[in-house]
Amino acid sequence: MTSPVGLHRVIEPSGVLPQAATKLDNDPAIGADEVRISVERLNLDAASFRQLHTKHGGDGEAVRAEVLEIIRTRGKMHNPVTGSGGMLIGTVEEVGPRSPLGLSVGDRVATLVSLTLTPLSITDGLRRWDGAGEQVPAAGHAILFARSIAAVLPDDLDPELSLAVLDVCGAPALTARVVSGYPNAKVAVVGGAGKSGSLSLAAARRSGAARTVGIVPVEHEAARLRSVGLADSVALADARDPVALARAVTTALGGPADVTVVCVDVPGCEHGSILSTDEGGTVIFFSMATSFAAAALGAEGLAADVTMIIGNGYVPGHAEYAMSLLRSDAGVRALFDARLAAEKPE
Amino acid sequence: MTSPVGLHRVIEPSGVLPQAATKLDNDPAIGADEVRISVERLNLDAASFRQLHTKHGGDGEAVRAEVLEIIRTRGKMHNPVTGSGGMLIGTVEEVGPRSPLGLSVGDRVATLVSLTLTPLSITDGLRRWDGAGEQVPAAGHAILFARSIAAVLPDDLDPELSLAVLDVCGAPALTARVVSGYPNAKVAVVGGAGKSGSLSLAAARRSGAARTVGIVPVEHEAARLRSVGLADSVALADARDPVALARAVTTALGGPADVTVVCVDVPGCEHGSILSTDEGGTVIFFSMATSFAAAALGAEGLAADVTMIIGNGYVPGHAEYAMSLLRSDAGVRALFDARLAAEKPE
Repeated sequence: MTSPVGLHRVIEPSGVLPQAATKLDNDPAIGADEVRISVERLNLDAASFRQLHTKHGGDGEAVRAEVLEIIRTRGKMHNPVTGSGGMLIGTVEEVGPRSPLGLSVGDRVATLVSLTLTPLSITDGLRRWDGAGEQVPAAGHAILFARSIAAVLPDDLDPELSLAVLDVCGAPALTARVVSGYPNAKVAVVGGAGKSGSLSLAAARRSGAARTVGIVPVEHEAARLRSVGLADSVALADARDPVALARAVTTALGGPADVTVVCVDVPGCEHGSILSTDEGGTVIFFSMATSFAAAALGAEGLAADVTMIIGNGYVPGHAEYAMSLLRSDAGVRALFDARLAAEKPE
Repeated sequence: MTSPVGLHRVIEPSGVLPQAATKLDNDPAIGADEVRISVERLNLDAASFRQLHTKHGGDGEAVRAEVLEIIRTRGKMHNPVTGSGGMLIGTVEEVGPRSPLGLSVGDRVATLVSLTLTPLSITDGLRRWDGAGEQVPAAGHAILFARSIAAVLPDDLDPELSLAVLDVCGAPALTARVVSGYPNAKVAVVGGAGKSGSLSLAAARRSGAARTVGIVPVEHEAARLRSVGLADSVALADARDPVALARAVTTALGGPADVTVVCVDVPGCEHGSILSTDEGGTVIFFSMATSFAAAALGAEGLAADVTMIIGNGYVPGHAEYAMSLLRSDAGVRALFDARLAAEKPE
């Protein structure tokens, strides 16, 4: 009997969830509700790659050796220093008869759960990878559990583009759900020009927001966001300055926001986002730099009756929803295309 | 023109909120929307007192001297090491004509916003305090802003009892609000025998919960909670063990919880509380030991469609609601009375 969350794959310590395990069982034989993926590429988490790159002084051989060693000893790509993993692309190789994931053999998929909890085995020594970047061509296999998540990559889009969207697809789905709860919502997205920010702006508008503002820290981001028309207004503010942020939001929306979405990965945005939000409103924190204590004590100290939500990367249908925004919203598509073009060397 | 959140009292650095300030203006002259309190006693935050006590090797004179020095230099009791403050009791001395707090001169009150953001001046050198405990008899004044919060202490209750309830009054109010959103809710309170936990259990029941369970770590707490009848069932589990916690909750409630309330101040309860909660359910984290990243990544890794809320200590009417639970629920009263009796030396 296999566990839907993969408890049966935990080798040590016993009793913990796969993410907390030091070692997973990466046996290619799958249980009745599991799926095996033939791996094509790993996308290492940026923080993880940076740590390895820095540790080895940019020596790609050494970086590759350490990644192989991590996967060999842990049965998963879980950087023990940063605690982070990444995601992978591959092709479905075998589907257990009771898998609820809806995948078919031959589907090209991206996994939307972290590599930190995905059983993984590498068979090619990562020989096609120079250890100099986060994109790792690889051969081997990975296992998905009943409660894992994978998205089928569309044939008609650049896989890089799909991946960039899928990487943050929880944000627009949760934003849509929350905004739908407020009739004629005023919505502020802090970090509106980024990947999760721009998708959240599009989701807010599609969910009936009456007015939206994208907050960005520098003029060139403001110009970019204005040019694609994703927000009703765009304003400059340092999100770490509570008074400046609240002033920018309130001015742009004609009052505080019903929903404030925090998408900037810098510490210290809690007080400003609370102060920008109306009584009875909601703040959604997607930034991993959010401090639980700063948010909890900040709202209490401001006597602010706001609901504060920890951004959950999983919402049912999140991948399809984000991809539909990419396809239907020219502004989203333009921002993502520009970002990919800037990242590609050629 | 005064700021409702006290920006006009910030001396340095400029532009930050009072909580983030290194120095506040504690001038006794109040603005039109401020209130001045004549201080009777400070209740230092437990973590703050412990740090000072340890630093000075239990030398009460030295502890007292440092508290005085902190208040003198910062204009507030904000421990620079722990970042925490505490609360105070006093009597309303002057009320500005535009104060919205509803207080009258002569009211005996407890402040429900942290001392870390409350302008404070001490005039008696804390000479009645031996520096050996968190309760600090004091003379001086404190300032409340328009958006500060203070609760009038009832005449008919031991002030210690009122304070113990007011200290955690945000938890039952927010629990009530969330539970009310689920018809016939199944509710789990992790740490159900503690102050915030027992009040949350009472709030859940009063808000229409169909079934409640209190989870506790040790048998003597289970016996105590069972004896007062606050929960439909009581179960033992280590909240840091996700599988054990989920099993205990699911067994007691006949399925996962609609609402899980986390009231235990130990790290590592995120995964278990997520795993204990039904799809579409809500987890409320009141524990300051909650890790934002562990919660966000944990829910994603489990593909768990749960709403995760950062416990906000402020909900309108929270003090009155908690006091009404204390007065109307014999089980709550019995637990709090027993706790106070155990803490008092005589």
